[in-house]
Amino acid sequence: MDCIFCKIIAGEIPSKKVYEDDDVVAFYDIHPEAPVHVLVVPKHHVEGIQDLSEESYRVLKPVHQAIQKVAKMTGIDKTGYRVIANCGPGAGQTVLHLHYHVLGGKDLGVKLL
Amino acid sequence: MDCIFCKIIAGEIPSKKVYEDDDVVAFYDIHPEAPVHVLVVPKHHVEGIQDLSEESYRVLKPVHQAIQKVAKMTGIDKTGYRVIANCGPGAGQTVLHLHYHVLGGKDLGVKLL
Repeated sequence: MDCIFCKIIAGEIPSKKVYEDDDVVAFYDIHPEAPVHVLVVPKHHVEGIQDLSEESYRVLKPVHQAIQKVAKMTGIDKTGYRVIANCGPGAGQTVLHLHYHVLGGKDLGVKLL
Repeated sequence: MDCIFCKIIAGEIPSKKVYEDDDVVAFYDIHPEAPVHVLVVPKHHVEGIQDLSEESYRVLKPVHQAIQKVAKMTGIDKTGYRVIANCGPGAGQTVLHLHYHVLGGKDLGVKLL
């Protein structure tokens, strides 16, 4: 599997991990756009939201539990944070392994794009 | 319950619906930031991602199934789309009822903020 996130999950590529459990890993984005910018990634490989199926919807709960934990651990639960998933290369998804960006630690404004 | 999305779900406030099932409603954002800008909202009231609990994690599967359906119905599954959840008023969350913005139909660029 030539997937950079699968290699991070397997420990073959280093990452600055924030949180890990049986289902999920969370690590800092190497090109941060905010003081806190963490990627929450299910260990089960699925390309993206559009590819979720009966065998992979189960990742959604641990992914969201990890988002909650990362927000608390980094303190952005207090000030607010934004969760973003790019769906497809045309939307800026550069790694085809489902991941949720968790961004906070600065004024995010009200504009989404 | 003085929640505008609960009132939309109850049919007390009109909306331009795209999709609805037993668990979810999806309707066009009244202040669109892209040619396609739909809000996917669970019918079960929970304030936001940070408030999800054992009784509400179950909304995540139907919400993501609805995102997939809305993307197909609007054609943005072909070109790519972005899914965004603002978590807390400090992050620009203006309605305290969990919702996922689904945006597409134009070049979204690679910048998230």
